[in-house]
Amino acid sequence: MAGLVSIDEVRAAARRLHGVAVRTPLIPFPAARPAEVLIKPESLQPTGAFKLRGAYNAIAALPDADRRRGVVAHSSGNHGYAVAYAAALLGVKAAIVVPDNAPKVKTDAIESAGAELVRVRPTLAARIEGSLNIARARGYAQIPPFDHRQVIAGQGTIGLEIAEDCGPHAPAAVLVPVSGGGLISGIAVAIKALRPQAKVIGVEPELAADARESFRSGTRVAWTAADVARTAADALRVEQVGELTFPHIRELVHDIVTVTEEEMLAAVRTLALRARLVAEPGGAAAAAASLFRSAGELGVQGGPLVVVLSGGNVDPVLLARVLAPDTESYNR
Amino acid sequence: MAGLVSIDEVRAAARRLHGVAVRTPLIPFPAARPAEVLIKPESLQPTGAFKLRGAYNAIAALPDADRRRGVVAHSSGNHGYAVAYAAALLGVKAAIVVPDNAPKVKTDAIESAGAELVRVRPTLAARIEGSLNIARARGYAQIPPFDHRQVIAGQGTIGLEIAEDCGPHAPAAVLVPVSGGGLISGIAVAIKALRPQAKVIGVEPELAADARESFRSGTRVAWTAADVARTAADALRVEQVGELTFPHIRELVHDIVTVTEEEMLAAVRTLALRARLVAEPGGAAAAAASLFRSAGELGVQGGPLVVVLSGGNVDPVLLARVLAPDTESYNR
Repeated sequence: MAGLVSIDEVRAAARRLHGVAVRTPLIPFPAARPAEVLIKPESLQPTGAFKLRGAYNAIAALPDADRRRGVVAHSSGNHGYAVAYAAALLGVKAAIVVPDNAPKVKTDAIESAGAELVRVRPTLAARIEGSLNIARARGYAQIPPFDHRQVIAGQGTIGLEIAEDCGPHAPAAVLVPVSGGGLISGIAVAIKALRPQAKVIGVEPELAADARESFRSGTRVAWTAADVARTAADALRVEQVGELTFPHIRELVHDIVTVTEEEMLAAVRTLALRARLVAEPGGAAAAAASLFRSAGELGVQGGPLVVVLSGGNVDPVLLARVLAPDTESYNR
Repeated sequence: MAGLVSIDEVRAAARRLHGVAVRTPLIPFPAARPAEVLIKPESLQPTGAFKLRGAYNAIAALPDADRRRGVVAHSSGNHGYAVAYAAALLGVKAAIVVPDNAPKVKTDAIESAGAELVRVRPTLAARIEGSLNIARARGYAQIPPFDHRQVIAGQGTIGLEIAEDCGPHAPAAVLVPVSGGGLISGIAVAIKALRPQAKVIGVEPELAADARESFRSGTRVAWTAADVARTAADALRVEQVGELTFPHIRELVHDIVTVTEEEMLAAVRTLALRARLVAEPGGAAAAAASLFRSAGELGVQGGPLVVVLSGGNVDPVLLARVLAPDTESYNR
């Protein structure tokens, strides 16, 4: 381990991602409670989530000989699609190990990108094992969903763009959904290097708050798969932050707050109607915090808040239900 | 009349709009039929539609003494909200004349921006008369929805951004929804000045195809209010293109094609699920053409197509219905 990911590694990732990842704009979010909130809509990446950045950077950074054999990833969905998509862009074979409760919209996307789909039980352990078996048998390089320097560096390009685009005034805080911790780790590296006044705050579902517990206790705590399966935020169902991401979170993150299931679903609705952005529940976690927590509750003051909308691969029936809750059939 | 709007007028508008309008990115749209399609999502403007550009530019360009008295606009909705919002930003009083069949989501937004709402019958004539009466009685400056140089120049900044952002290869064509013609006129000015190889193609609902009829016949044809009221694309229910926009369309636009109601609604669904963008039916007209017409049918070849998504202020119940068409209650 060579310490935390550096801003130079994030800058190298930005060069690899030029022309591949969409440079997402900052979008005003007038519905939010604190005075000024800007959304960074990573849902607008071609795969519908930020994961494309880390996955592409990790595959592009592989030595040629490794890349030629192929790549394998395990994922609750968005990372799997990102690896499949990035591998296709780079002409690399890919196998994706997914939990058997992953939403169909996500597994369909993985298959449509041309990757091989491997289904396992919905635990982190089963996914790690499945991925390792394929790596050993075929010599494929593993592209982990979060606990990998190049993955963290790729996600960090979001922080780089926020730092460059937020104008003369640094944001008071950047709010980021937390699952395995790769997204918030990368963003925190860039923000702390370039806009050190800005606080980086993680947001987790109350029903999958292992990262907050780890952050508060100072040790990496694991929740059970059954615990985290309770949240509708399928993208945030990882049981434990990573060995590499945890020190980033401890050192660079100011706080981790939680939101309820109802708050995430309300944020999905408000994002669709007030920012015209489609979000999945986990992708809307940070937006939910901006809607339902005051600046005081978040421990921030002054300047704008930046909210990362991390993904938009939502089940269409769920999205329809939050949009038209008064429709009779939806109350059945 | 001083001829067509010039690229210098568009550049002046871009300077006024800096920091006010979101610089919307070009988003890949993998679902589209022609090989490569990029979406310009103007639905991400703070008002949910491109209209903010023209409205703000027109108000900001008024002489101080005029602006101080106030502004009045007539609009099928999105322009009204844009004038209300832009006036609030500039500290100017605003009265907005709307047809009494405008969707509630749009009239609510106008009121929330602090403007006065004036309801009239759903015809262009009634809206023009209502607006003129307020202008005469109070000395308010009229901000027309499309037939005004500064409005056209403001919408033209979309074309300027497309020309700057599309990289080394000019798009083969830019597809633009057409109603009164302000959007396509402004975009065509910028594209023809900066990327003259690119064709500018208008897209209209089959049920409100007055602009295509005008374009083909060479004279400005008016459809009836009852005719155009048939389309679900409420943003495109204008009966006739403008006196000023028509010469722009005749001189700078390559063709105008039509799409059906079903195609626009299917495009709303596909934009939500494949590009994670919320569109209103009229806003999705050009995207519908990219989904349901081949490059040959559009008369284009080579390079990417750019599709303008002009607005996202959709009725939540309509959006829910297109997202979950199989839900029993929606078939009633």
